[in-house]
Amino acid sequence: MSQALYVVKIGGNVIDNPEACARFLSDFAKLDAPKILVHGGGKVATQIAAKLQIETQMVEGRRITDKAMLDVVTMVYGGLVNKNLVAQLQALNCNAIGLTGADGGIIRSVKRPVKTIDYGFVGDIEAVNAAQVNALLSSGLIPVIAPLTYSSEGLLLNTNADTMASATAVAMAELFEVNLIFCFEKKGVLSDPDDDNAVIASLNPASYADYKSSGVINKGMIPKLDGAFEALKDGVKQVTICHSDDLLEAVMSAAGTVIAL
Amino acid sequence: MSQALYVVKIGGNVIDNPEACARFLSDFAKLDAPKILVHGGGKVATQIAAKLQIETQMVEGRRITDKAMLDVVTMVYGGLVNKNLVAQLQALNCNAIGLTGADGGIIRSVKRPVKTIDYGFVGDIEAVNAAQVNALLSSGLIPVIAPLTYSSEGLLLNTNADTMASATAVAMAELFEVNLIFCFEKKGVLSDPDDDNAVIASLNPASYADYKSSGVINKGMIPKLDGAFEALKDGVKQVTICHSDDLLEAVMSAAGTVIAL
Repeated sequence: MSQALYVVKIGGNVIDNPEACARFLSDFAKLDAPKILVHGGGKVATQIAAKLQIETQMVEGRRITDKAMLDVVTMVYGGLVNKNLVAQLQALNCNAIGLTGADGGIIRSVKRPVKTIDYGFVGDIEAVNAAQVNALLSSGLIPVIAPLTYSSEGLLLNTNADTMASATAVAMAELFEVNLIFCFEKKGVLSDPDDDNAVIASLNPASYADYKSSGVINKGMIPKLDGAFEALKDGVKQVTICHSDDLLEAVMSAAGTVIAL
Repeated sequence: MSQALYVVKIGGNVIDNPEACARFLSDFAKLDAPKILVHGGGKVATQIAAKLQIETQMVEGRRITDKAMLDVVTMVYGGLVNKNLVAQLQALNCNAIGLTGADGGIIRSVKRPVKTIDYGFVGDIEAVNAAQVNALLSSGLIPVIAPLTYSSEGLLLNTNADTMASATAVAMAELFEVNLIFCFEKKGVLSDPDDDNAVIASLNPASYADYKSSGVINKGMIPKLDGAFEALKDGVKQVTICHSDDLLEAVMSAAGTVIAL
């Protein structure tokens, strides 16, 4: 049996709420095992872009990352958000190291090919360097990963944080027994969108198919859950979706929605 | 004889010039030895602050880092500048890892005590964790350090890049034979400010005292050189001040101003 590793993703809505974020970081610091934090962006990038009079480019309802917006997300996600998380974790005696995919070459991507839409400076993940990440973990460091990757041509690329967390979890599953935990502002996957306590305790492929066909699970939760099942098929031991206040309970499989094959 | 380590500081004026910066990075990538890059900020932070309508606070002619300006330098130095340097170095097959002092707890500081002036969120360096930096070097990583440190309370703090380079060089001198190289837009310390080719080839404490008393060396160069002599007294083997185009020559002591005891 290989050693446990927790890959924890914290959503942008939690990042945007200083009190909720501080509570989450306190729990993350207490988690006594090898661990990696992947963070979303939050609304600050949009606010800073607005102040800089950079308009969000939309094409057919999709958000486009032009060069000006790439610079903003590099500043905000890679700088402001990432380094403040690291400094707060250091004050909690958690030896955090803030990284983008470019740092140590840990997550390389390719600029998304233009088909019908040119998404601009957006990366599709090509490779996670598990050996390099493991070298950092082995020297007692806790990687804190911002949602940016890089291409072999030296471009930084805006990248989805959920996808980065899943890809990291899958790559590390070669070396560890990986538990992937998505923390956000809800208590889990809900069977009733109007009842925050209606948490579906567990999902497997059969029950997920049922919830989807009845329409109970829909919209934005579907790509997240499809990604979770993909990660399990690719070797991740367990995926949990839970509230950012419930990380330590989720580690004991005692909170949120537990997803397994 | 311990192994050589190059601690290279690149100034803000070079960062601000994309062509000069690309030439420098190409040479830095070629330098075939353990190495650390410390970078200055450049003018982008001031430009972004102006666009965000954040005014630079000045007290008695000194620049003050208030919270709004700290957020800007965290974004620009820790995010935009640092991550673009890292991505460019990765494309040159140099396994760079971008860090502030907070990352891995490598450079801790204290918020500068208020005497006559409150400088705001500015850090005075307290400790460099040489063992942690060495662990990164040992795993084949090239630290690229932004001019930010952190306090034990979890604050990020704006910190002078020259001072960070010197403090890092001194701390690493316990483990390596350290060569500290300051790269900027001039060919070295000049004996005539109007002649860019009038480079003083070498300085020792006696010749430095002569140049100072005759007024040949003055103003902004004095704190830089005082710092260089301090670093030498504290165990650094050699300090060189040279043009950013001359890094590989300076490594061979064939360019710039070589400073030794």
